[in-house]
Amino acid sequence: MELTVEQIAGLLQGKVRGDSSRKVSKLAKIEEATAGSLSFLSNLKYEPYLYTTGASAVLVGENFEPKKPCNPALIHVKDPYSALTVLLEAYNKQRLESKTGVEQPSFMASSAVMGENGFRGAFSYVGEGSVIGTGVKIFPQVYIGANVRVGNGTVLYPGARIYDNTVIGARCVIHAGVVIGSDGFGFAPQADGTYKTVPQVGNVVLEDEVSIGANTVIDCATMGSTIIRKGVKLDNLIQIAHNVEIGKNTVMAAQSGISGSTKVGENCVIAGQVGIIGHLTLANRTSIGAQSGISKSVTKEGTALFGSPAFNYKDNLRSLSVFRHLPDLQKRVEDLERKILNLPGTKGQDA
Amino acid sequence: MELTVEQIAGLLQGKVRGDSSRKVSKLAKIEEATAGSLSFLSNLKYEPYLYTTGASAVLVGENFEPKKPCNPALIHVKDPYSALTVLLEAYNKQRLESKTGVEQPSFMASSAVMGENGFRGAFSYVGEGSVIGTGVKIFPQVYIGANVRVGNGTVLYPGARIYDNTVIGARCVIHAGVVIGSDGFGFAPQADGTYKTVPQVGNVVLEDEVSIGANTVIDCATMGSTIIRKGVKLDNLIQIAHNVEIGKNTVMAAQSGISGSTKVGENCVIAGQVGIIGHLTLANRTSIGAQSGISKSVTKEGTALFGSPAFNYKDNLRSLSVFRHLPDLQKRVEDLERKILNLPGTKGQDA
Amino acid sequence: MELTVEQIAGLLQGKVRGDSSRKVSKLAKIEEATAGSLSFLSNLKYEPYLYTTGASAVLVGENFEPKKPCNPALIHVKDPYSALTVLLEAYNKQRLESKTGVEQPSFMASSAVMGENGFRGAFSYVGEGSVIGTGVKIFPQVYIGANVRVGNGTVLYPGARIYDNTVIGARCVIHAGVVIGSDGFGFAPQADGTYKTVPQVGNVVLEDEVSIGANTVIDCATMGSTIIRKGVKLDNLIQIAHNVEIGKNTVMAAQSGISGSTKVGENCVIAGQVGIIGHLTLANRTSIGAQSGISKSVTKEGTALFGSPAFNYKDNLRSLSVFRHLPDLQKRVEDLERKILNLPGTKGQDA
Repeated sequence: MELTVEQIAGLLQGKVRGDSSRKVSKLAKIEEATAGSLSFLSNLKYEPYLYTTGASAVLVGENFEPKKPCNPALIHVKDPYSALTVLLEAYNKQRLESKTGVEQPSFMASSAVMGENGFRGAFSYVGEGSVIGTGVKIFPQVYIGANVRVGNGTVLYPGARIYDNTVIGARCVIHAGVVIGSDGFGFAPQADGTYKTVPQVGNVVLEDEVSIGANTVIDCATMGSTIIRKGVKLDNLIQIAHNVEIGKNTVMAAQSGISGSTKVGENCVIAGQVGIIGHLTLANRTSIGAQSGISKSVTKEGTALFGSPAFNYKDNLRSLSVFRHLPDLQKRVEDLERKILNLPGTKGQDA
Repeated sequence: MELTVEQIAGLLQGKVRGDSSRKVSKLAKIEEATAGSLSFLSNLKYEPYLYTTGASAVLVGENFEPKKPCNPALIHVKDPYSALTVLLEAYNKQRLESKTGVEQPSFMASSAVMGENGFRGAFSYVGEGSVIGTGVKIFPQVYIGANVRVGNGTVLYPGARIYDNTVIGARCVIHAGVVIGSDGFGFAPQADGTYKTVPQVGNVVLEDEVSIGANTVIDCATMGSTIIRKGVKLDNLIQIAHNVEIGKNTVMAAQSGISGSTKVGENCVIAGQVGIIGHLTLANRTSIGAQSGISKSVTKEGTALFGSPAFNYKDNLRSLSVFRHLPDLQKRVEDLERKILNLPGTKGQDA
Repeated sequence: MELTVEQIAGLLQGKVRGDSSRKVSKLAKIEEATAGSLSFLSNLKYEPYLYTTGASAVLVGENFEPKKPCNPALIHVKDPYSALTVLLEAYNKQRLESKTGVEQPSFMASSAVMGENGFRGAFSYVGEGSVIGTGVKIFPQVYIGANVRVGNGTVLYPGARIYDNTVIGARCVIHAGVVIGSDGFGFAPQADGTYKTVPQVGNVVLEDEVSIGANTVIDCATMGSTIIRKGVKLDNLIQIAHNVEIGKNTVMAAQSGISGSTKVGENCVIAGQVGIIGHLTLANRTSIGAQSGISKSVTKEGTALFGSPAFNYKDNLRSLSVFRHLPDLQKRVEDLERKILNLPGTKGQDA
């Protein structure tokens, strides 16, 4: 996509200083930009780069005045960083919206239906009875089983695997290698030491505007549904076990895991590599530090937890700070013991 | 699958109270069930839902007497939960058994063979010399390399990847995105700081009735075999390194990992996000708490471990309980030091 | 591949003792080898197996003298283990080099180009404008998006997913299920509690001789590039977030994760299940113990860290050793308190 500086200024309602006929075709950081790039200057700490950058154009603030002559055309906008985001969104939207039609070979069961303006890539699979909304982008090698519902505008990246009966809302983004609806880990121990599989016949429900990172796994419920509420954002390589429910707008960083039947509240923030055991309830706005292990329910909204096992965030930091000097504390106790033993009143007094 | 209440009672050798001609086509929890659902009442704490549920039929105990009139037909069985499991198993079995034939396009090398009653989905791949047993279900987009053996009745879900020379037993379940037989992580450091790849030419052997969760990875042995014994159940996103051996009926929860050449005993229970370093031996029936790090071999059967690094489970809980109040302990030591210094016998006595 | 003992001795410049016409077709450990196997004896602790092994031939040291008669033909070489590695490399190379041509159906956009001596497996996908070097092996079901560059001799195993604009160097190895270039986890919190997606329009750059383990994920940069430098080796199930940079010859074990914008130095060694938070810089030759959590930058080269949160490796081990006996330390403090209270000078002295 090639645009002139004038076209960009038009899109962003900005004012050009310099050559408005220049063309840009890519975005780059100001310190790395080469000819043909558009860049931005938001934090003025980076201003020196303005006078050395190879960028053809730079987004700057409304009232920004260059201290020296500079090579790039300047586009004055209210907030350069927001303007950039607007541009990026327009670019992303255009890139996805232009993807339509069906590549061959691909597989769609005769009883499945798909709305308009969608895309189905080569080697993708849509099973019996599945209903795909309008504008859905199914990248190559995606698997969608039987009786799946996918809402309007959702994007499924290459190799995402959606098991039978899954329900996916509108405007969701499912990245490559995601698995949704695999069997929950249910095995009943038998008297002879073997395990018997507990059939998992529930499903997974993703509400609207859910985003799932690459290679994350969400298991189906034993019965009923594993539920991911509206606006939840999951990072890569996350494990969500059977019958979990995650409340609206909760975000989870990479490699965290939630065990079976736990209910996480709304607007929680869960850092990376966190583990949460099963059958808990976490209040809204719970925040959890990286690598923590949560073994108890949280009833008070806005609680901050840290540690493995986790407790109050600040208390944990205080304990950790003593932990770093434990050998010193031990030595002080030894010193005290030695002194006490030598005191007049203590001879032979105690075991 | 639609069944009448009478048919279900027949399957379960139960007795119907109410309209035995009703039809049900799905299973649901009693508190969520709608018309057309079969539900169950096992824990009597849920009895109030019996009088409000939308379920068309409910499995209840042999001697259960409703306290009020209720809408669902009742099917009296010896143990409602076991009866449900029997039904779920029958349903699951029927669902998989009905999947037969070959979808096109799919790829099977001319030298590969496959038994009867099997299924090969679209875009699946079976390489040279591979031998697939009877009743094996190969879902779409599965990859099976060269010289692989797959035992009777095994199910491979979409996008499972089986490298060359892997041996998979009978009645195994391999979920979506699983990778079996990828190269072990073997790199020999060179004098110039680079690493040289140590070729990994062994394979992976899965015995019968092994279950592998979505996106789990099992590396091939450097030489010889990485071995997963009969009845082992692995959850999602687990890492099994080269030359590991896992004993019969051991279960591992999600996101745990075992480093190279470690041998895990039989009937061990390993919780989630556990790490086990390489070249260890763990005795039978070892149990390991979540997020633990195991750095030493375990020789005594039935040992329970916890912590990172792990030691005896109960001892670790005791240390953790002091850890939570470490700042307090530190303060008590400070108080003692201050008191001792003020005692008559201690003036100038010590450094 | 079947070779005579004489052919192997020729390849390795070794000297045969015994029947040089014997044929071997596989490699095995000396304690497990059966007829037709080649084995090796490097560590003399394994010598007893030489007299009982079923191997047809065994690599032994230049000056090795068997103490008793033995069945296998012996091939005397300078260093048996190195000789084995040479053989394994030759075997691996031959196995991959023999894979050429295009299996059908596969998909390659008309604007994509591919060099000679390559392989494209069935159901693989190469998007618009992508440039694939010579001798590149693209296994079945691999996805390569648009405008991707893949250097000479690189191998992509089944189901690897490469998003648009990724740059991959020469002689890289990308294992099954790897995802490269998925969106970074960027969401800006809004006043109403929802999150707005920050478009991720950068890419991923892998330099030459990078190895990526199965199901590992590397996110694209928000802008600019996520960079994996020459010779980096990543194990399975690793998470690399947007804008991370990993220096030359750094190795990372399975299930570790690096958060956004962190720069890891050269020749670092990062053990399994480690987490590193965002926006840090780690000096060259930093080494990090398993399950550690790194929350601060490291400026001194060669620093060894351990713990969650991590600090100096040895100090952490010392603190952990006291931690194991914390209840005992607590009891000693209690004893001291009791004794002090009973001393003559302390009555009523302090709160």
